Amino acid sequence: MALKHFLSVDDLGGRAGIEHMLELSGSFLEVTKRDMPKVPALRSKTVVSLFYEDSTRTRLSFETAAKRLSADTMNFSVSTSSVKKGESLLDTLQTIEAMGVDAIVVRHSAAGAAYQVAQWSNASVINAGDGRHEHPTQALLDAFTLQNHYGPSLDGANIVIVGDIKHSRVARSNVKIFTELGASVTLVAPPTLLPESIVGWPVQAHHDLDEALREANVVYLLRIQHERIGDALFPSLREYTARWGLTAERAHRLKPDALVMHPGPMNRGIEIADEVADSPRSLVTEQVANGVAVRMAVLYELLGTGGPVV
Amino acid sequence: MALKHFLSVDDLGGRAGIEHMLELSGSFLEVTKRDMPKVPALRSKTVVSLFYEDSTRTRLSFETAAKRLSADTMNFSVSTSSVKKGESLLDTLQTIEAMGVDAIVVRHSAAGAAYQVAQWSNASVINAGDGRHEHPTQALLDAFTLQNHYGPSLDGANIVIVGDIKHSRVARSNVKIFTELGASVTLVAPPTLLPESIVGWPVQAHHDLDEALREANVVYLLRIQHERIGDALFPSLREYTARWGLTAERAHRLKPDALVMHPGPMNRGIEIADEVADSPRSLVTEQVANGVAVRMAVLYELLGTGGPVV
Amino acid sequence: MALKHFLSVDDLGGRAGIEHMLELSGSFLEVTKRDMPKVPALRSKTVVSLFYEDSTRTRLSFETAAKRLSADTMNFSVSTSSVKKGESLLDTLQTIEAMGVDAIVVRHSAAGAAYQVAQWSNASVINAGDGRHEHPTQALLDAFTLQNHYGPSLDGANIVIVGDIKHSRVARSNVKIFTELGASVTLVAPPTLLPESIVGWPVQAHHDLDEALREANVVYLLRIQHERIGDALFPSLREYTARWGLTAERAHRLKPDALVMHPGPMNRGIEIADEVADSPRSLVTEQVANGVAVRMAVLYELLGTGGPVV
Repeated sequence: MALKHFLSVDDLGGRAGIEHMLELSGSFLEVTKRDMPKVPALRSKTVVSLFYEDSTRTRLSFETAAKRLSADTMNFSVSTSSVKKGESLLDTLQTIEAMGVDAIVVRHSAAGAAYQVAQWSNASVINAGDGRHEHPTQALLDAFTLQNHYGPSLDGANIVIVGDIKHSRVARSNVKIFTELGASVTLVAPPTLLPESIVGWPVQAHHDLDEALREANVVYLLRIQHERIGDALFPSLREYTARWGLTAERAHRLKPDALVMHPGPMNRGIEIADEVADSPRSLVTEQVANGVAVRMAVLYELLGTGGPVV
Repeated sequence: MALKHFLSVDDLGGRAGIEHMLELSGSFLEVTKRDMPKVPALRSKTVVSLFYEDSTRTRLSFETAAKRLSADTMNFSVSTSSVKKGESLLDTLQTIEAMGVDAIVVRHSAAGAAYQVAQWSNASVINAGDGRHEHPTQALLDAFTLQNHYGPSLDGANIVIVGDIKHSRVARSNVKIFTELGASVTLVAPPTLLPESIVGWPVQAHHDLDEALREANVVYLLRIQHERIGDALFPSLREYTARWGLTAERAHRLKPDALVMHPGPMNRGIEIADEVADSPRSLVTEQVANGVAVRMAVLYELLGTGGPVV
Repeated sequence: MALKHFLSVDDLGGRAGIEHMLELSGSFLEVTKRDMPKVPALRSKTVVSLFYEDSTRTRLSFETAAKRLSADTMNFSVSTSSVKKGESLLDTLQTIEAMGVDAIVVRHSAAGAAYQVAQWSNASVINAGDGRHEHPTQALLDAFTLQNHYGPSLDGANIVIVGDIKHSRVARSNVKIFTELGASVTLVAPPTLLPESIVGWPVQAHHDLDEALREANVVYLLRIQHERIGDALFPSLREYTARWGLTAERAHRLKPDALVMHPGPMNRGIEIADEVADSPRSLVTEQVANGVAVRMAVLYELLGTGGPVV
């Protein structure tokens, strides 16, 4: 594919590109399960994380992936950096790049930030979440996880995504990847938390969770963001759980083999009940494990010399 | 021994196990003094520190130990993590573990936290301090340091531990290891800072430091915690120093070859006078140096394949 | 040269020593441009950064340099360390050193702090900025950058340094290195921001920027520190820009081949206009890139065995 950056699910150019990345992820999942889960593929490459929003789990996942490929890793932590002194994103980027990095993993609260960085940068840029816009490695790891459990093909799978769709980059990226792979996606959200732009999306929308769950093969729960509670868009936590939470009771009414996913960190007892999070249906822990393999695949695709994985 | 976790001095199963670890620490101390102080023993293993309490010195000591064994290291810093978003200890742990780590070094303010993590975890867990409960690698490094100075055997040594015994995990772990190794331990503390449970401990207690010091071969000073000052348990700093501090004057009355230890960081001028901290009696710096060797031994014991140290 | 520490430009012992380091930096610049920009020179050495002031860019530059030499790196972050518990600089240092580090990179707000650390330490100490005193690796990278652009020799170059000279360690170190290499240095600053000690410096001073720029081959802009605004020493930002900023209009009146430098992070629109920062005259990004090569040279000089760079 000769990808330079990975900013959006769109960069994979459709189903064939997505499937190539999923296959490559499978090779790296095998690597992570070895006694010596490390390959020399990116020796002497440097991967820097540039996170303008806190996210230890995503940062550690990329860092683990880079180290298993033998790359050097560094963190540009915004909270202790020149950014506090008012440095612009461009100047921060040029500084990092001038030090000679090969890939920059960017998380930023502004939609489009990773695109901006990619335009300015000679290094490869990976979007680790930009505002409400995209989080493509999350989508890739979710598709990979699902492929390993639902079956190699997602054609015809009914996937229900539940929660604050409007503010969710995970929802945007996952709608793209799931539908490209042939699944049928239904969005369920409080009316105030469905984006207006949904009209153009290849999805159905529902305001009634119970109805949507009846045909679901997969329920994908989004994390509710506590900081939205109290603003006009959001009911109380108790009401949220009652109407849009995957309670134990609701889970009992799911198809026997329906699967449950969540990008983490979970709000147990709110969007997902403990019994559900810890049930055999739940793929949450496997999503995290697969995240390392998928990010190895992405780093390898962007920075590798194209030789065999080893 | 085939240790899976190292949560308590008790895990070593008594004197023979402790002595095995001390001997192994000796081998690694020799490694740390080489021109190339690094061995490939844990190549491709990953060691993560999960610290719910700040402690740069303990974290760096483990990190140094892991790197000298060629392991990869990562920090899960709670202050910038999902934990701030309300994630539970279990979910944080499952996330870390799903990424494929081999050992987790845990520090937590709750007694028993490391045990809880170990029950949940497939990775090896090392307790780097859990509330007032245990800090077993500190005990091991203290025993190792003492062995190198007091003599290979601690049988019959009079060790006086001074300070806030009640809130000290160091005191608890050290009482265990010193008495297992045949030393006689005396605790000296303000009455309010002696735990009631001491009745069952194999120690003597004293409220008069000067009397206790008369026969001391080793004085082990605990760090006073400023945050306790002003609460009903604690006199003023000046009174503390006058009655329970190792002042220069008191140090002059010690046996000529008596040794002084402190787990650091020291409050100079409070529990220990400058002249004492910097005197030849003081093993404080050597405790830190030995800490790396002892933690190499622990990591090697838990994660190594059992081959020679090299 | 057999340098143990690098605390001041003076440690290089004059022009010959400076030129040796610049030549060595050239070898490492070549290394950083390779496909595999990494050499094994410092394998199994440990480099610790001990920063009492935030500076991600300087810390990352040293960390990158150390990693490209295959050294292990660690950060002693003061904000999460025992220092918060009141530990003294000496005790912190002894702790770090006891763990077996080979070099300590120190930044501290107190002039002379790095000297103090060097007196106490067996490890090599590199001054990464001590108060208003010195920042010798910055001076070295600036001289190296200039040499590559102005010509191998700086003899007779007119270098104008503009800004808050009084509080600037960069100005102090750069005056030393530029004049040692034969350049003529002119300082331009608001009268309140020129140090009184300038009388003894081998420089000229000017209060009128436009006059000083007429003969300039190089304009070196210092970062203005926002925190000084509002104190009696400092005019408003707008007045500062009008009188001492390198505006686009002023840049047009420079000699055609005059060069512009800045240690970063830049306050665009204040001491330097966007058009100037991004013009071909500007060496700002190259200063950053060269910083890694120069710091590799410094680490190699202090810790290397003296063999070829490879």
